[in-house]
Amino acid sequence: MIHLTDAASDPLTIDRATCESLDAADPLAPFRDRFALPEGVVYLDGNSLGALPKHTRAHLDRVVAEEWGVGLIRSWNDAGWFAKPQAVGDRIARLIGAGPGEVVLGDSTSASLFQVATAAARLRPERRVIVAERGSFPTDLYVLESVQETVGGAQPLERRLIDDAGPTLDDVLDEDVAVVVLTHVDYRTGRMHDLAEVTRKVQATGAIMVWDLCHSVGAVPVDLASAGADFAVGCTYKYLNGGPGSPSFMWAAPRHHEQARPALTGWHGHARPFDFTVEYEPTPGIGRFRVGTPQLLSMAALEASLDIWDEVDLDAVREKSLRLTELFISLVDRRLAAWQVEVVTPRRSAVRGSQVALRHEDGYAVMQALIERGVIGDFRAPDLMRFGFTPLYVSHADVWDAVDVLEDVLASEVWREPRFARRGAVT
Amino acid sequence: MIHLTDAASDPLTIDRATCESLDAADPLAPFRDRFALPEGVVYLDGNSLGALPKHTRAHLDRVVAEEWGVGLIRSWNDAGWFAKPQAVGDRIARLIGAGPGEVVLGDSTSASLFQVATAAARLRPERRVIVAERGSFPTDLYVLESVQETVGGAQPLERRLIDDAGPTLDDVLDEDVAVVVLTHVDYRTGRMHDLAEVTRKVQATGAIMVWDLCHSVGAVPVDLASAGADFAVGCTYKYLNGGPGSPSFMWAAPRHHEQARPALTGWHGHARPFDFTVEYEPTPGIGRFRVGTPQLLSMAALEASLDIWDEVDLDAVREKSLRLTELFISLVDRRLAAWQVEVVTPRRSAVRGSQVALRHEDGYAVMQALIERGVIGDFRAPDLMRFGFTPLYVSHADVWDAVDVLEDVLASEVWREPRFARRGAVT
Repeated sequence: MIHLTDAASDPLTIDRATCESLDAADPLAPFRDRFALPEGVVYLDGNSLGALPKHTRAHLDRVVAEEWGVGLIRSWNDAGWFAKPQAVGDRIARLIGAGPGEVVLGDSTSASLFQVATAAARLRPERRVIVAERGSFPTDLYVLESVQETVGGAQPLERRLIDDAGPTLDDVLDEDVAVVVLTHVDYRTGRMHDLAEVTRKVQATGAIMVWDLCHSVGAVPVDLASAGADFAVGCTYKYLNGGPGSPSFMWAAPRHHEQARPALTGWHGHARPFDFTVEYEPTPGIGRFRVGTPQLLSMAALEASLDIWDEVDLDAVREKSLRLTELFISLVDRRLAAWQVEVVTPRRSAVRGSQVALRHEDGYAVMQALIERGVIGDFRAPDLMRFGFTPLYVSHADVWDAVDVLEDVLASEVWREPRFARRGAVT
Repeated sequence: MIHLTDAASDPLTIDRATCESLDAADPLAPFRDRFALPEGVVYLDGNSLGALPKHTRAHLDRVVAEEWGVGLIRSWNDAGWFAKPQAVGDRIARLIGAGPGEVVLGDSTSASLFQVATAAARLRPERRVIVAERGSFPTDLYVLESVQETVGGAQPLERRLIDDAGPTLDDVLDEDVAVVVLTHVDYRTGRMHDLAEVTRKVQATGAIMVWDLCHSVGAVPVDLASAGADFAVGCTYKYLNGGPGSPSFMWAAPRHHEQARPALTGWHGHARPFDFTVEYEPTPGIGRFRVGTPQLLSMAALEASLDIWDEVDLDAVREKSLRLTELFISLVDRRLAAWQVEVVTPRRSAVRGSQVALRHEDGYAVMQALIERGVIGDFRAPDLMRFGFTPLYVSHADVWDAVDVLEDVLASEVWREPRFARRGAVT
């Protein structure tokens, strides 16, 4: 448990001035000015789509005007386009405890999970079970349905789902399990697995461990190497601020590189793509997880955001993240008790990511009213309001202001107005 | 055969002034000013990476600054992000003879071919053969290896390759063939299949026809509906000028939409993606070919280029394309006969795409010398120089100038200088 400050360790004494003094002492505070946040907005949805780094516009425009417009086809060599997915991957490696040559960018996270999960399952051909979590972000389960069929063939692999209510991982692990796919930080509740401990347990049964780091990278410490994990995928448009739909990344432990056979075999993963041979031959190393031509403009925006991440102390991120989530939870406890708001996220910091979910029966309407007032979080069915705390641009004063507005929305019951009623919403 | 003009119908009488008068009479000539081409360059590689439309920079910057920077997560609804892959697909539909609701954007062409080819093969579960062309762009063959395994399971589907030297399509078609995958316009030679005739022949045997339109869309007439084709994929960064790595597209005939089961099952293809259910249920229609979150910045650049395509008369494109390629071939015949340059591309316009390939034993070095002189084409192993003619921004005078430089490079033998010798080149 990280205490807010000595002065603030009793949540009853916190006020906005306390928050401002926490901001004044915050070593990450200067990063906020690197982002173009709209006036009057408290943005607590960076866990869904990260904010725009100010210099991304100029960087992207230069890539468009110079590398594409002037360099044209020559930029595949001259601007290093072909090598980009691995060069950018190397910059992400530090953020997840991986080494150079171990990370490569892919298409969407769904497509990349298909790559690593098929590669993982094919390493255990004699085993017939994939384990996943019922509460995973659903695309992971949807993709795994395809993996079960792709790898299993006429006899699709069996799926076993674990759940907070049981069965547990211990209940389902046995020698039939080929692969376990878990999300490090739960997309709804923010509950965080012990990455090293779970990896050890899974590998002890001979299974392969695949981590989904979508809600971890840039938010919490991840050390794949010291955990000895097998494979991972993650998303770059959340905490990493790569822009809407920026490319996912894939990681494979070096010990698996040469045996790995991911299911999508496009020419960018070929050993000699410009020999134009008829037969597929995977390139040595992580490059074999590549598929086709990468979407270079989306990748360029990600590169710009990594300029910021190159400067960031990850321990400071975790420390501030815990302070922000703890502050939010404390203020919710103190000020919102009257309105049936339940903190769903673990209060124990060791198992908490960088977001807090509040359960409220009418969470959808409350969130719409909040957004109208400039406090942007999101809603996850059936009844969760999610608030993401991104240490690079969310301040302690933001947390105070968000709870202020939330209290007012609940007390005034403005959320009962018909315009906030639920309809087919996207986010 | 489209004649250049009455005055120019005898290639021996063509000079640069003829080319200039052809440009003056060219209804597509005004489009050239819509593109930002570098000074001193004749760009004949738009069949590999299209040129930058001038207004793409401002459009993309607006999407970055306003939709991402200000709209943030709200843009999924407010800016129509979720619907984009189909909305943009509808704009491509007109270019390939498809209707609204039939085209959707995907990740790379390789990933999209995997989608449509698995869906196609699964429509003929009792058949065990995939037919493809040995001369396909290799990623198609690599992807099909995965399709053979994914659909065939323990008993991968068999592959039969056709070849200009035989076996022919007629030789290999029988009642074991599930799917035929062909590229409409050959990436090296520019030879064009008769899309309707081949489709009819393939379907007559009960097989499913998948077209790769990478070198067709925006270059030659494509009418999938009247050909009654089954599936297609294509690329948007060549003739469509969507930018480096811009998203591919997929088309499925409406009669297949409800049965189609593409192998990548991500949440953007789900019937109710925001219900976050545990089981995958494909959405009705072409949307089920979607996978994960699309790379929206790359897609935004494509949208800008489609603003131009919305205005283009496709018949005029074909007419000019044939005039340009015919002019180039005529000038090569007349001026380069002394230097063992062979025109590989068909001279018969009905089977010619929008590019011309010249065979030369030292084609690599010749092409490098040409590029140094500002005439940008590309090289395809072992000995082909490719020249793409994009009617929106290549003029008849460009063709004249390119042959001028090519003649000079060959006559001077400058290409023998060591700096043009072959090394591990990317393009």
